[in-house]
Formats: sequence, C-alpha cells, structure tokens
Amino acid sequence: METRTELSTIGEFGLIKRIAEKFPIVQSGSIKGIGDDAAVVDTEGKKLLISTDLLMEGVHFDLAYTPLRHLGYKAVAVNVSDIAAMNGIPNQITVSLGLSNRFSVEAIEELYEGIKIACDEYNIDLIGGDTSSSRGGLAISITVLGTADEHQIVYRNTAQKGDIVCVTGDLGAAFMGLQVLEREKQVFMANPDMQPELSDKDYVVERQLKPTARMDVIHELRALDVIPTAMIDVSDGLAAELLHICKNSGIGGVIFEDKMPIDDQTYLTGTELNFSPMTAALNGGEDYELLFTVSQEDYQKIEQVSEITPIGYITNEVEGAHIMMKSGSLVKLTSPGYEHF
Amino acid sequence: METRTELSTIGEFGLIKRIAEKFPIVQSGSIKGIGDDAAVVDTEGKKLLISTDLLMEGVHFDLAYTPLRHLGYKAVAVNVSDIAAMNGIPNQITVSLGLSNRFSVEAIEELYEGIKIACDEYNIDLIGGDTSSSRGGLAISITVLGTADEHQIVYRNTAQKGDIVCVTGDLGAAFMGLQVLEREKQVFMANPDMQPELSDKDYVVERQLKPTARMDVIHELRALDVIPTAMIDVSDGLAAELLHICKNSGIGGVIFEDKMPIDDQTYLTGTELNFSPMTAALNGGEDYELLFTVSQEDYQKIEQVSEITPIGYITNEVEGAHIMMKSGSLVKLTSPGYEHF
Repeated sequence: METRTELSTIGEFGLIKRIAEKFPIVQSGSIKGIGDDAAVVDTEGKKLLISTDLLMEGVHFDLAYTPLRHLGYKAVAVNVSDIAAMNGIPNQITVSLGLSNRFSVEAIEELYEGIKIACDEYNIDLIGGDTSSSRGGLAISITVLGTADEHQIVYRNTAQKGDIVCVTGDLGAAFMGLQVLEREKQVFMANPDMQPELSDKDYVVERQLKPTARMDVIHELRALDVIPTAMIDVSDGLAAELLHICKNSGIGGVIFEDKMPIDDQTYLTGTELNFSPMTAALNGGEDYELLFTVSQEDYQKIEQVSEITPIGYITNEVEGAHIMMKSGSLVKLTSPGYEHF
Repeated sequence: METRTELSTIGEFGLIKRIAEKFPIVQSGSIKGIGDDAAVVDTEGKKLLISTDLLMEGVHFDLAYTPLRHLGYKAVAVNVSDIAAMNGIPNQITVSLGLSNRFSVEAIEELYEGIKIACDEYNIDLIGGDTSSSRGGLAISITVLGTADEHQIVYRNTAQKGDIVCVTGDLGAAFMGLQVLEREKQVFMANPDMQPELSDKDYVVERQLKPTARMDVIHELRALDVIPTAMIDVSDGLAAELLHICKNSGIGGVIFEDKMPIDDQTYLTGTELNFSPMTAALNGGEDYELLFTVSQEDYQKIEQVSEITPIGYITNEVEGAHIMMKSGSLVKLTSPGYEHF
C-alpha cells in the first residue's frame, strides 16, 4: 500500500524545508534562494528576461491522465520555452502552488520531482515561491528568469522581407497525443478494467505530457553564430504564431505544406482518429517548438542543423500569412483556436 | 443597471490589449513589457530582488466583502512589502489571473484598476503575466521585481546581540478588521436588509482590505543613512516574524508589552468583539508592517521617525523570543497561527 502523509502533519514550513533541501543552488547568479522575504539574483551584466505561466487544473491539465511528475516537468519546460523564444538562457524559477487537502505530501513530492528533473536538465535554480491551500483544484504558477546580452535578444516584431521561416522539431504531435489521452479517458470511464492501448502512440503521448523546451537549438544557434531576426515559441499552433510574427513585424509570410515537419506517428494517429495531421500542426497547441526567421545569408548555417526545418519565407505583404498547398493553391492562415476563454 | 460584458466577447487578446493600454511603461529599467514571449528588464548594475505570491479565492480573500479594486491593490501591496523587507525598491510586477466565467470584463477591469492604483503609488510597471480561465475560484499570482545595491540588501539572518528591535506603524488592526468583516457577513447572511455598522471601524477594516507596503519607511531610512541589521515584513503576526529573525540569526530577543504600537480603534474593536488586541498584534496576520533590528548607534536617528517604534532588543540567548508583560513576567513568544494548511 502506498504511504499517504497528510500535509498538515509537516505543515507549510516543513514542506518548504523539504523543497529547499532538494534544490541546492548551483547558478552563480543565484545569490539567495528560498528562505527570506525575496530571492536575490545577480544578472551579471546581462539583461533580465522574465516570463510567467499560471496553470489551472481542469483547464490546462487533467490529473486523470497526467502523472504529477510529468506535470511538474511540463510546467517548468513551458516557461523555459518562453526564455528560449527570446534567445535567452534560463537561470532561475519560482514555483507557487495552490493545493487542496486531497494532495498528500507524497503527491506534492512527485510534482517537485518532475520540477527537479526539469531544473537539472535546463540548469535552473528554484529560488522561491509560495505554497498555500486551494478550495478548488490544483493551481501552479511558475515564473522563470533568464538572461541574454542585449544584442542577442530576439523579439517577434523584427522579421524582414526575404527572411527564411524556420521551425524546430515537428508539429502537431502534442495535440494528437491529447486526443489519444482524452479517448483513453472515455474508454476507462466506460470500463475501468480496460487496459489502455498506447504502445504505438508513445511519441505523441509523450509530446503532450512531457514537452521539451528547445534549449538545444538555442545553444546550437549560438555555436553557429546565428541570431534569428524574429522568434516565438509554438504554444498555440504554427498558424497563430506565424500570424503574431507577421502582425507584430508588419510583414507577410508564405509557408509550404510539403515542408511542414510532421512525425509519422502523428500521421498514423490522425488517420486512426480521423483528425487531419496538417490541422493539428497548424492549429493544435502545445508543441513548444521554436518558430523563427533568419536572414538569407544565414541559410547555409541553418541547413546543417537536423532539428531545424526551413518551411517558407517572409514577404512584404502585410495581409497576413499563407500556406502554399501541394495542390498549388494559396490558403490564408487563420488561428481559430487561440482564444483561451 | 450595470453593464456586463462577457469576457468571451473581447477574448484573451482583447483583454491583454486593454490591460497594456492602461499600463504604459515608466521605469527606465523596463525595456520590454507586455507583448512578447518574455519581458526584458535592465537591473542597471544592481542586484535583482524577486518575490511571488499566489492568492486563492476562499483561502486568502472572500469576495463577499472584498471589493475587487481593493483586492487588486492589496495583491500588489503584499508583494511590494516583501521587496521593502529586503530594503529594496520595487520596479516591476507580473500579474497572472485564473478567471471563471462569472467575472465580467467590467469586474476584471475593477481588479486591474486597483492594481493600477498600487502601481502608480509604488512607481511600478506591469510588464507581463498570464490570463486564463479557472474551473474553481479566482486565482491571482503576482511576482514583483525590485533592485538594491548589494550592500543595502537586508536579510533576516543578520541580527546581532544588543541591536534594537523596531516595528513600523501599528499592529493587530488588520486581524481585527477581518473579524469585523466576518461578523458583518454573518449578519448580512442572516438578514440581507441590515445595513453594516462600520463607521467606527473604518481604520481596522481598511487595514484588512487595503494594507500599505511601508516603502515610505524604506525611503526614510535611506534618507537617514540607516541600514537595518535584519528585517522581515509582518504578514503572520509579530511573534512569528520575530521568531524567524531569532531562529535565522541564532539569537534571542525581548520585546515589551507596554511598547507595542496598537491603535485605539484596535483596542475598542477588541473590547466589542471580546478579542485581545495584544493577541491580535502578536499572532494576528496581514499587518504588512516592517519588523527590523538596528545597531544601537543608529538609535538616535530612528527615534526621529514617528512611524517607527522601538519595542525591544536582541539578546544572545538562542532559546527564542520573549515578551516582558506590564506585570513584570517574561512570557515566551509562540506562533500558533502561522501554518497555512
């Protein structure tokens, strides 16, 4: 039988002590972590980047199929992805939790175990936060701090006509993984004895439950001495993100259907679930890949990187973004799925 | 009749646009505010201070008697108070909201109006955040950024034997105000036609609903060239906070009952509600005053400041903190009320 320790037996300070022990400070810029009114950070002459996300149970995650360890990892990764999208290096996070009493100490430690794995992977210190109770579901608020030299920072409003549009990794898999998990949840609710059939869906399910921030690509771009002209992370589908770059930069863009990087498992799952992989790639969410533009003179350097796919180019039309279909027709990109209310 | 605009009619991006328009950037260190993957901040050669709070409806606030404007103000002020407690200057905040659909656009704008009043008062830029829906109650997550030169930063673990213990303002009023509001809520629920009787409770109620971060005292200490030896803000009652300083600094402390600053209205309300004002001061919460220690050589400078009251001194006993009662007996301080679960 699993042990269940009530949070009330160790209390808020007991919990904070356990967390602090698990997260020793490693970054030279982290002067003071957990344990005072505020944390103290040295940006070491660089500019500070800060981004924050609030994840609410029942809206951003469903604990019916999301292991707490994965949830902790993902909550950090999606924030790190925002720092990557500025071409910065993440250094610290704060983690605030609103917890109902259905969470045991063991459950909370599972969540922090996932946070710890992400902190180790992205080389980040946990330097503060807030834990309290919640009358509703679980609330997770993470703020990430990063740094970059001013000339390295990449905004979304600086794409130029003639730039190459690139995307990292592949698209649409996280959305397809969500459909698989939702289907399995319905099957399980109808018949709790059924075992899930996920062996051939491992990739799409992992993309949904444990997405990766593309810090590997950021480091690779630095090694190649390439600074993108504009960048954004793909959290709401490629179409919405390309429209953000176009609108903010006052330019237009064309991407090509036959260049879109989509994994085989995304195609196969789409066929099985009767859902278009291209729609998943364009309008599905949570890929956490990077969409960026580079000047043509950097094209040869980019070509070497297997994790980067050139998918189109920037035009001077300010009427939005389009996709050139394999059939030869030009379709205007729209982003129906990006309103969160 | 009041206008009610559904959030769905303007959407997430419509809401962000309205917020961004209301919060122009004023701080020289705020390079990029709302509108990209992350905000960009220049700490201008100073150390960065960061603190965060997550406020959950039904735990930290009750919308039955908390106007949204006051709630917005308070959510900022309690974070600013943490920067004050480090002897720093606040510069920026991020605000994340989890909103259920019972909140109209007008209600959210009321909340931001209170946030705006606090930002203006403390000279802070709103530079980012996250808005999304919530299946449960309202969740407010605020992160505040501040700066200080390294030598100015005051921790809680650096009090020395012989230092004077000081506190700002007065204590216990916010707790007493909460008791008044809770009582009025019960009266109202029993008989909705009853009008609340709050005319002689204005101070204690305001202390609960709209507490002030003591930046005025921080600026005054700077003008006097006084750097406290240790400091903490009083959010969980004076006893708990003094115990934090003692435990972290490895020292003991004695405070005096007859020195404790308690407002007349706190006394009168305590008599009416049959609740000890001294217990409210020692173990009540949310005063958001500053508790700090100064070296004896700074005593004369401190004496000039009407908002600062010396209440005791630091000893080398490491057995905790005590209060000397008017009766002459020495009572060990405890903090029963500071566990948040």
